[in-house]
Amino acid sequence: MTAPHVTLGEVLLPESGAKQTDKIRERRIAVCGACLQKTDRRQKQPPVLIRSQSVEEVLPCRVMASASIPVYNSSNNPLENSSNHNASRESLKMEPLADCSLLPGEERIIDKDIIYICPFSGALKGKVFITNYRLYFKSADADPAVTLDVPLGAIGRVEKMGGASSRGENSYGLDITCKDMRNLRFALKQEGHSRRDIFDILFKYAFPLSHGLLLFAYLSQEKFEENGWSVYKPMEEFRRQGLPNDKWRVTFINANYELCDTYPTILVVPFKATEEDLRKVCTFRSRGRIPVLSWIHRENQAVICRCSQPLVGMSGKRNKDDERYLDLIREANGTAKLTIYDARPSVNAVANKATGGGYEGDDAYQNAELVFLDIHNIHVMRESLKKLKDIVYPNVEESHWLSSLESTHWLEHIKLVISGAIQVADKISGGNSVVVHCSDGWDRTAQLTSLAMLMLDSHYRTLRGFQVLLEKEWISFGHKFANRIGHGDKNHADQDRSPIFVQFIDCVWQMTKQFPTAFEFNERLLVTILDHLFSCRFGTFLYNCESARDTNELRSKTVSLWSLVNSDLSFYQNPFYTPESNRVLYPVASMRHLELWVTYYIRWNPRIRQQQQSPVEQRYIELLALRDEYLKKLEELQLSDSSPNSSHLSNSSTPNAASPTQHVTHLHTPF
Amino acid sequence: MTAPHVTLGEVLLPESGAKQTDKIRERRIAVCGACLQKTDRRQKQPPVLIRSQSVEEVLPCRVMASASIPVYNSSNNPLENSSNHNASRESLKMEPLADCSLLPGEERIIDKDIIYICPFSGALKGKVFITNYRLYFKSADADPAVTLDVPLGAIGRVEKMGGASSRGENSYGLDITCKDMRNLRFALKQEGHSRRDIFDILFKYAFPLSHGLLLFAYLSQEKFEENGWSVYKPMEEFRRQGLPNDKWRVTFINANYELCDTYPTILVVPFKATEEDLRKVCTFRSRGRIPVLSWIHRENQAVICRCSQPLVGMSGKRNKDDERYLDLIREANGTAKLTIYDARPSVNAVANKATGGGYEGDDAYQNAELVFLDIHNIHVMRESLKKLKDIVYPNVEESHWLSSLESTHWLEHIKLVISGAIQVADKISGGNSVVVHCSDGWDRTAQLTSLAMLMLDSHYRTLRGFQVLLEKEWISFGHKFANRIGHGDKNHADQDRSPIFVQFIDCVWQMTKQFPTAFEFNERLLVTILDHLFSCRFGTFLYNCESARDTNELRSKTVSLWSLVNSDLSFYQNPFYTPESNRVLYPVASMRHLELWVTYYIRWNPRIRQQQQSPVEQRYIELLALRDEYLKKLEELQLSDSSPNSSHLSNSSTPNAASPTQHVTHLHTPF
Repeated sequence: MTAPHVTLGEVLLPESGAKQTDKIRERRIAVCGACLQKTDRRQKQPPVLIRSQSVEEVLPCRVMASASIPVYNSSNNPLENSSNHNASRESLKMEPLADCSLLPGEERIIDKDIIYICPFSGALKGKVFITNYRLYFKSADADPAVTLDVPLGAIGRVEKMGGASSRGENSYGLDITCKDMRNLRFALKQEGHSRRDIFDILFKYAFPLSHGLLLFAYLSQEKFEENGWSVYKPMEEFRRQGLPNDKWRVTFINANYELCDTYPTILVVPFKATEEDLRKVCTFRSRGRIPVLSWIHRENQAVICRCSQPLVGMSGKRNKDDERYLDLIREANGTAKLTIYDARPSVNAVANKATGGGYEGDDAYQNAELVFLDIHNIHVMRESLKKLKDIVYPNVEESHWLSSLESTHWLEHIKLVISGAIQVADKISGGNSVVVHCSDGWDRTAQLTSLAMLMLDSHYRTLRGFQVLLEKEWISFGHKFANRIGHGDKNHADQDRSPIFVQFIDCVWQMTKQFPTAFEFNERLLVTILDHLFSCRFGTFLYNCESARDTNELRSKTVSLWSLVNSDLSFYQNPFYTPESNRVLYPVASMRHLELWVTYYIRWNPRIRQQQQSPVEQRYIELLALRDEYLKKLEELQLSDSSPNSSHLSNSSTPNAASPTQHVTHLHTPF
Repeated sequence: MTAPHVTLGEVLLPESGAKQTDKIRERRIAVCGACLQKTDRRQKQPPVLIRSQSVEEVLPCRVMASASIPVYNSSNNPLENSSNHNASRESLKMEPLADCSLLPGEERIIDKDIIYICPFSGALKGKVFITNYRLYFKSADADPAVTLDVPLGAIGRVEKMGGASSRGENSYGLDITCKDMRNLRFALKQEGHSRRDIFDILFKYAFPLSHGLLLFAYLSQEKFEENGWSVYKPMEEFRRQGLPNDKWRVTFINANYELCDTYPTILVVPFKATEEDLRKVCTFRSRGRIPVLSWIHRENQAVICRCSQPLVGMSGKRNKDDERYLDLIREANGTAKLTIYDARPSVNAVANKATGGGYEGDDAYQNAELVFLDIHNIHVMRESLKKLKDIVYPNVEESHWLSSLESTHWLEHIKLVISGAIQVADKISGGNSVVVHCSDGWDRTAQLTSLAMLMLDSHYRTLRGFQVLLEKEWISFGHKFANRIGHGDKNHADQDRSPIFVQFIDCVWQMTKQFPTAFEFNERLLVTILDHLFSCRFGTFLYNCESARDTNELRSKTVSLWSLVNSDLSFYQNPFYTPESNRVLYPVASMRHLELWVTYYIRWNPRIRQQQQSPVEQRYIELLALRDEYLKKLEELQLSDSSPNSSHLSNSSTPNAASPTQHVTHLHTPF
C-alpha cells in the first residue's frame, strides 16, 4: 500500500492494480509527465505520433538525428536574415533530440531552450522544438519528464507576453491559445529579444495559409494500408438505403456545382420534380441549398430532407415552385402532413427576414407544419464553449462546480440539439417525412439530420458507417469546416469560427454513454476525430465544401483520417458492441442524464485523469480472450478426437449466446 | 420500429432490445404500472414481496384469499368500535384481492375503494388495502394497472387533507409523507367521513410504537435458509484482523454495558491500558464512549480508533488519564504523531464547549495533531436531503437542474464525508494511527471509520464483509437507528431524525461507481438495505444500541436482513467483481466525479426509469455463461478423450485469466 499525497477534495485515482492480459500489458501506457504524455514501448512503422493523451498513445521516442530525419541546415533557414542576434543564433543550434519521432514529411524548423509555465507543475526548464507540424516540449529537470506535443493546427492564437519593460520572473515570453481547450505559456530570457525568432516561426507555421504556405496535410508523406478516401461513395450509400426508387431519383444537375456550389454533386430529389423545378426552387432557398433527400426509412418510406431557409424576406415573398416542391416531398410516401423543423428559435427565424431569409409561412405551405427547435446560432455556441473553458482550464472551478457548469449553458445547448434530433427521428419512425433547415443549412441542420440518422439507422453506429455519416452529412453537404475551425488562419477572432462539429461529437458521445452496447466505436475514435479536426495532418476536415476540395485536389494530395483509423480498427472498437439492426435509439435528453464530457474537455488536467481503460472494459476483454482460448482448445480437441461426444461442438454457441460470438469475429484482438 | 410519445427534453429510454439468455429471461422483470411496480413470473416459497422497484422485484401475485392467508374477521377488527358509519362498514368488507402475496405473519386490516392521486398519471380509482406490514394499492381502470406497495415502516407522516368545508374534486383525503423520497396522496368520498377509519388504522399501524403495538419485525414469521444473526461475531472479526496481539487486548469490561451503555460488549484497547484506566478515561468522554480500536493495518499496525468528544467544557478541563490513554494508542506502533480527526467544523467543536464538550487541545495532547473535517451535523444533513426531495419529487426540476442540485448541498456533504474518510485511510496507509470522533461518535464518526475501512480493507467490499462492516461500525457501536429513522414512531418532526446512514450508503454507492470491479455486491444490495432501514420487516436496524437489543431480545424474536440477502446471494452480486486483496481504494472526492444517485433518489419518477440491468452487465453475464458452457464441454471432452491433446486442459485457465475464473466460482449463476 502506498500513501499518495492527498489534498482535500482532490485525490488522484491510483492506476488500476488489476491483473492484465499479456496483450494489454504489451500495449500498456506509461505515463511520463504531469502533462499527460504517454509513451508506448511498442515499435511500429511508419512512426505515428498521436496527441490526444487521454485516449491515445504517443509512439516510441526515437533519436531525432537519425538518417531519415532532416537535420537543420542554416542555408535554408527561413529566419536567416532576421536572426541577427547571438541569442538567436545560439538557439538555432540543432541537437539530436530524443523522445520524439517525426511523421513522414515532417521537418524540424527550430529548437530552443525555454521555460514551460505548466499550470499544474509550475515553471519547467526544457527545450521546445517546432516542426512544420508540431510544437514539442520536453522538460529537462522534472522526473518524470513533462512533455507537450501539440500539432500546430491546434494553435488558435500566439501572443507575446510581457514587454521590454516587464519585470518579474518568467514574465517575458509567449502565450499560446489552443483550439483544444488548453493554453500554453512559455517564458524566455529577456536579454536579446530571444523570443523573436520562435514567435515568428510559430506564427508562420501555425498559420501557414496566412503566410502563403501549404497546410501540413499537403506536405505529409504518410502511407497507410487503407485508403480512407474510398470510405464514402455517395451512390453506394444511396443504394444501401434502397435509392433510387419510384418516388425518389438521383440527379446530376449539380455535377459541376452549378446549381449549388456548397452541395455535393450527387443529389436525391422527388421523382416528380424536374431539373427545371430544381432550378426554380434554387432561387428561393438561401445559397441555393434546395431541399434534398438525406435518408429514407426502408419500411415506411418517410424521408429526412435538408435545406436552407426560404428567401421570404420582409415582404413575405412566396414561391409556388418551392411550395409545390415541398408538397412533392410530403406526397412521396402518401402522408397528410410534412413536418418542417426549423432548428432556430422562432425569434431568430423572424429576424432573418430582415436579411432576406425567413421561414415557411402557414398560408403558403398548407400541408406542412412548422416546428421551431430553439437551437441557438454559432455565436452563442462559441461563447458557451469559451465559458466552459474558463471554468475547466487550467483550474476546474470546484466550489460552485454545478452552478458554474450550468451558467455556461453548454449542456443545455447539447440537450436542445439532442431533443431536436429525437423529434426528427420520432416523426420519421411514425411514418412522416420531415424537412430540416436552419439559416444556411450547414450547421444546426447537419447536427440534427446526422444525429437523427444515428438514432434511426444502426449502420451509422458501426465504425465505417459513422465515417460515412460524417463524410455525407457534414463534409459533402458543406459544413464550413475551414471557416468554423480556421485551419491555418491567423484571424483568431473571426466571427465565423464556432465549435458546431465539436458539439455534434459531444452529442454522439452522450448517446454512446446512454447506449454503451449500441456503437461499434469507442470514445477514442471520437477524441481522435476531434484532434484531427484541428491538426491539419489529414485532408478530411479541410475546406468548406466539395467544390473547394476538388479545386484543391484534396483527395489526391492529402491523406484521409480514415486511412489512419481503418488501418488500426481494433483500437477504436467498443468491446461491448452488440449489433441490433432494427433498434431506434432514443437517448434521454434531460439535464439529469447529460454529462459533461470530462475525458475530452478536461483531459489536460492531471487531477482529472481518467483511467486509461475502464476496469469493466478490461474485465470484459479478458473474458473475451478466455472464451476464445476455450473455443480454440475445443476446436483442437475436436480435430484430434473422433468420439461421438465432440460431434455437437460444431453447434457450440447457443442461440442466446449468438451475439457475443457474432461480434467477436472482429474483436478477438481488441488490443 | 415503434414511435414512443415524445415530449421535449423528456424521452423514455426504450427497454433494451438485446437478446437475453434463458437465465436472464427466466427472471425478467415485467413493468406493470406507471408507479414502477414490477412483477416476476417466477414462483418461490416463502412469498417475499420487495418494494424497491428500481432494483428489486415484486414476487408473484397470488390470490389473497388463499388458505394460508388470514381472511379478515370482523371479530378481531381493531376498528369495530369506532366504525359506526355505513360508509365505514361497507369499506371493511374484505374481498379476495389478487396481485399481492402476504408475508408469513402479515395480516390484512382493512381495504377500501380509494383514489390515488398519482403525480405522474393523475387521479386513479382503485382499491387500497392495509396490513400490519404494508399499504398496497391497485388501480381499477388504468392499463397497465398502477400499483403501490409501501411498507408501513416507510411512512413518516399521515395527514388529513381537505376539511369538511373543502371543495374541489379529490380535495378530501390523506396525505402520506414517506421516508423513502416520495409522498402519496389519496382522495376519498367526502360523504360520511369516509376517511376516518383508514386514517385511524394507518396512523396506528404505521406508528405502532406510539400505540403500544409491536413493530412488524416481531410479528413476522418468515423463515430463511440462512440465519443472518450469525454473520457478525466480534471475536471472529478481531481475530481476522490479527487481534489480540502484544499491543492490543480484548476487554470484557463492558460485558454488562456498565462502562458505556451504547457500546458493544467486546472492546479492543491498548494492551498497556488497565481496566482502571478505561474507567477513568470514560469519565472524560461524552456518553462514556472511550477511544477503542476499530481496525488495525496488518502490516504497519496503524489503527483506527473511534470515540466521542472529550469533556473539555468552557473552562478547558484536562484529563491526564485521557491524555495518557491517547498516547498509548500512538505508542502502540511506534510512530511520533497520533492524528485526531474531529469530524466537525471547528466552530461547532468550539461551540460544544458550552455544553461540556470540546476537542483535544494542543497543549494537553502533545504528541497528537488535531484535524477538523468540516462535516456538518445531523440537522444540516436532514435539511439538505429535504431540499433534494423538493427538487426531485414529484417533478424533477429541469430548467435549473444543476444549480438547484448544488443549492441542496447534498453532493457537497457527500464530498466532505468521502474526503474525510480518504484522509483517514491515507494516514493509516502511511503507518500513522488515528482517532476519529465527532460529538457523540455515533453519526459522522461511524461514516468516517466505516468508509475508511472500506477503502483500506477489501474484505469489507465482499457481500458478507460489508454486512460485517455495517454490523460492527454502525449497529454494534450504537448509531442511533431508532432515533435517526424513528421506527414506528409518530413524531415526524423529531429533531433527532436524520439521514446519516442513507448518506453513508450514498458514499458507498459513489465508491462502487468509481471502482466498478472492486465490490462484490451490486446496487440492488444498497437499495435493499435502505428499503429495510425503514421497513421494520427485519430486526437488523432496530434500536439505538446493543444493550437495547438485548433487553428486547431482538436476535431471538426477529429475523435479520442478512437472512434474506444471504439466502439469495447471487441476486446481490456484481458480475464485474474482481477480488484484489491489497488494493487501497481512493475515490475521487471532487464535485465533477460525484453523481446524484438517481436510481435511488429519483426511482419513483417513471420518466427517470433506468434500465433494469445495464446492457453492459447483461452482455457480460451472457459472456460468462458462454465461457462456462465451453468449459463444461471441454471437461466433457476431456473425460471421453484420452488423447495427449487433452492433457493440457487441466491447466485450462491461463495465469492472466485467473481472476475471471476466480470470481466465477461463485458467479456462474449470477442470475
